[in-house]
Amino acid sequence: MNEPSAIENTRPEETDMPPGTPDHEPDEPRPEDEGHDLSAEFIREVRESIDEGDGTHVRSLCEELHPADVADLFEQISDDQRKALVGILGQMLDPITLVEVDEDVRDLIIEAMSTGQLADAVSELDTDDAAFVLEDMDEEARLEVLAEVPVAERLALLSALEYEDETAGRLMQREVFAAPAYWTVGQIIDRLRSPEELPETFYEVFVIDPAFKVIGSVPLAQFLRNPRETVIGDLVGEQELRRIPADMDQEEVAYLFEKYNLISAPVVDRGDRLVGMITVDDVVEIVHEETHEDMLALAGVEAEQSGISGSLRATVSSRFSWLAVNLFTAILASVVISFFDATLEQVVAVAILMPIVASMGGNAGTQTLTVAVRNLATRELTAANALRIVGRETLVGLINGCAFAVLMGCISGVWYGTIGGGGGAEAGLVLGLVLAAAMIINMIMAGLSGILIPLVLQRVGADPAVASAVFVTTVTDIVGFFAFLGLAAIFIVG
Amino acid sequence: MNEPSAIENTRPEETDMPPGTPDHEPDEPRPEDEGHDLSAEFIREVRESIDEGDGTHVRSLCEELHPADVADLFEQISDDQRKALVGILGQMLDPITLVEVDEDVRDLIIEAMSTGQLADAVSELDTDDAAFVLEDMDEEARLEVLAEVPVAERLALLSALEYEDETAGRLMQREVFAAPAYWTVGQIIDRLRSPEELPETFYEVFVIDPAFKVIGSVPLAQFLRNPRETVIGDLVGEQELRRIPADMDQEEVAYLFEKYNLISAPVVDRGDRLVGMITVDDVVEIVHEETHEDMLALAGVEAEQSGISGSLRATVSSRFSWLAVNLFTAILASVVISFFDATLEQVVAVAILMPIVASMGGNAGTQTLTVAVRNLATRELTAANALRIVGRETLVGLINGCAFAVLMGCISGVWYGTIGGGGGAEAGLVLGLVLAAAMIINMIMAGLSGILIPLVLQRVGADPAVASAVFVTTVTDIVGFFAFLGLAAIFIVG
Repeated sequence: MNEPSAIENTRPEETDMPPGTPDHEPDEPRPEDEGHDLSAEFIREVRESIDEGDGTHVRSLCEELHPADVADLFEQISDDQRKALVGILGQMLDPITLVEVDEDVRDLIIEAMSTGQLADAVSELDTDDAAFVLEDMDEEARLEVLAEVPVAERLALLSALEYEDETAGRLMQREVFAAPAYWTVGQIIDRLRSPEELPETFYEVFVIDPAFKVIGSVPLAQFLRNPRETVIGDLVGEQELRRIPADMDQEEVAYLFEKYNLISAPVVDRGDRLVGMITVDDVVEIVHEETHEDMLALAGVEAEQSGISGSLRATVSSRFSWLAVNLFTAILASVVISFFDATLEQVVAVAILMPIVASMGGNAGTQTLTVAVRNLATRELTAANALRIVGRETLVGLINGCAFAVLMGCISGVWYGTIGGGGGAEAGLVLGLVLAAAMIINMIMAGLSGILIPLVLQRVGADPAVASAVFVTTVTDIVGFFAFLGLAAIFIVG
Repeated sequence: MNEPSAIENTRPEETDMPPGTPDHEPDEPRPEDEGHDLSAEFIREVRESIDEGDGTHVRSLCEELHPADVADLFEQISDDQRKALVGILGQMLDPITLVEVDEDVRDLIIEAMSTGQLADAVSELDTDDAAFVLEDMDEEARLEVLAEVPVAERLALLSALEYEDETAGRLMQREVFAAPAYWTVGQIIDRLRSPEELPETFYEVFVIDPAFKVIGSVPLAQFLRNPRETVIGDLVGEQELRRIPADMDQEEVAYLFEKYNLISAPVVDRGDRLVGMITVDDVVEIVHEETHEDMLALAGVEAEQSGISGSLRATVSSRFSWLAVNLFTAILASVVISFFDATLEQVVAVAILMPIVASMGGNAGTQTLTVAVRNLATRELTAANALRIVGRETLVGLINGCAFAVLMGCISGVWYGTIGGGGGAEAGLVLGLVLAAAMIINMIMAGLSGILIPLVLQRVGADPAVASAVFVTTVTDIVGFFAFLGLAAIFIVG
């Protein structure tokens, strides 16, 4: 095996085939379509085989799938098929699959696994992944599983679970590689070659002092470039080290990784001692999750239950609460409208045009709000520039408000001056002016509320994404109807 | 320097201070606040010093900042201060800063830099970062800069720029480390220690055949564990290699990295030959960027110009186009309302209540739409399960529609049966029933259009996030008004 030709002969298919082509029988569906997703055909075949109870065929289909693809597969089949698949795969089910699937599906898989199987899975995973799987289980089931996990891992897991949810301590893996500052590159390489238990992957050597405090870190690529006699401590300090306190919020961790392009970072306790490591792959998930949550929150969906693979009941109720709040604010708007019933009875054109004012305000407000929430999340909107941005957004509202006021004022003036309701050209002109004025007022309010509401929510410690949209559209609805109908009452019916 | 004590004595501050504390004079503001952001106080001091023309003080303040922090600083100051800061920093300005700042600010910094300064910056950056900086410049300015870049780097850059924007080819760096399959670990380590030009950081050794085709890759952590005599080809194949074709879309690249938790991946040409490498830090940016774009698109803001640091004119016009579309659809809805002017004139309560039906439909539609767009992006909504999900969302609309119909029917029945418009208890009951029926119809349509519209857009090759919201709210407005007013015309005025 030491000659190059021998190696290449053992792996001929790797070099002769186009990238990504799996080496499957031609009569079996290829598991992946062009886009690296499971093909619909493959999923259909697996579903049919599960329903037919043909476990052997299912296993042969799934044999070469990456755990992430198995997770995808679980997400694409029905609940009953999920349970059956857990049984069929048995020991073949890679524990990583549990980490990769959606929450609702994970709960179901965990339910279908035996305690022993779960304990094996948990022992095999890194502490961060194991804690992630365990954290959603109920207390009793979790303790049952932990009882079957070997002592050393159980203790590590219990202490991982002691950190608060969504903190660095929960996110980190305890398996780290650290070397004392006085070790040489040669000593470290020899240590790495010894069969001791080490983290499966790591990207830098953390350098520690005798008290286990992190002095610095040396990326493996840089480490490798140095001769064996180099002392590792001498390599430290070419780049500033970002230490992550174990109680740091995960959103903050993701922010640091993204800002400083980190691949991994040491996690330290209050005494600055090394307790674990966070790697970038966990952070990619968080970046996704946090933006995802913001996006759903803006649309009024609770992120927890938003997965399309969850139960119908969970989906319905996750949408219900926001709709209920929206109903309340819509009724408020109707109450405002009802104050002007006399105006509405006299000039039907007012009733016809009033949704336009509210709709434009609502949209302008949502635009400003979304930009504000994004810029708060990326820390581009800060206390230092908040005042300037508030002024700016109000100005944007004013400018666009004027533009649309002119446009819509003309349209409504012509519409109701010639064709529409009671009163000819002059009445059309007045109606156009009233609509234009109401639109300007509402667009300014949209800009103001779109930026002020998330800022205030952030300041009082609430999530600016969650309740903002309902406040903003309430403001624009009420101001829009009130301004338009109020002005109409004065100048048209007057 | 080879004794441990010596090392620790040279860096005493590293071990004695809490993490993250910079070693600054006590009377100078600390550049970072608790959250690892620049403090407002620090930014104020820099701004004042720039305005006073005190370059020496500005340089001393910025000396120890990470390029990402310098980028933040640029984002937080005015345009004039930005230009001045470029001049003050001069050669101190790390080229990485150009990669880290927002687009609008980058354009301004590039404008303020001399051609020579830019050429130096571009030569110093990795090809991916250099191409990123160059791609937004206009043709002429770009060629001027390239003319001053050393030949080898110029050629690499020109060929990088030949790949289409937002593809793997543009994203990759050309600096890669690859070893023939027959090399031993020892040979590779010796090669790494030679002063040859190598990528600054890399996380795996790509293994190639004589034709430069990628056979596999070995993570550095695994590579380091093996004795010098191990042949690298023997280490390959313990995990499946994900090769990225150079013309793959960046969104697809990000998806692969996230799904398979990749840290780096080889980029290959059509002949499967190694041409570059993509690392996870670039991908984190893309994940963020793509979700960011989706989120803004849903709110009707063009992502390009959404930064709060851009010009006022750009911001106004980025909001204008969507508002114009919204105006058009709002007018359409008003036209629908105007068909029923007779009804509105007779029963003012109808005018008062009609925004509620439209508003609830719009919100339910936006909920479904946001979930659909997210699940399309994460590939959880696919051709395989689309039909099931469409049925599900319609059902969710039906269930919530019924719930709110009962609730709102009762409220409006009581409201207009006792207090309101013309007609006592019986009229109130009819109005309540009409409102309830309209709400059920509109909520079902909201669910249907919220899922079908993004699916159809995706199928015809459009971005499901961009135009969906306008279509969905148009449907819910028109259906809402038409159903409520139509039913009212039949059953109340009838």
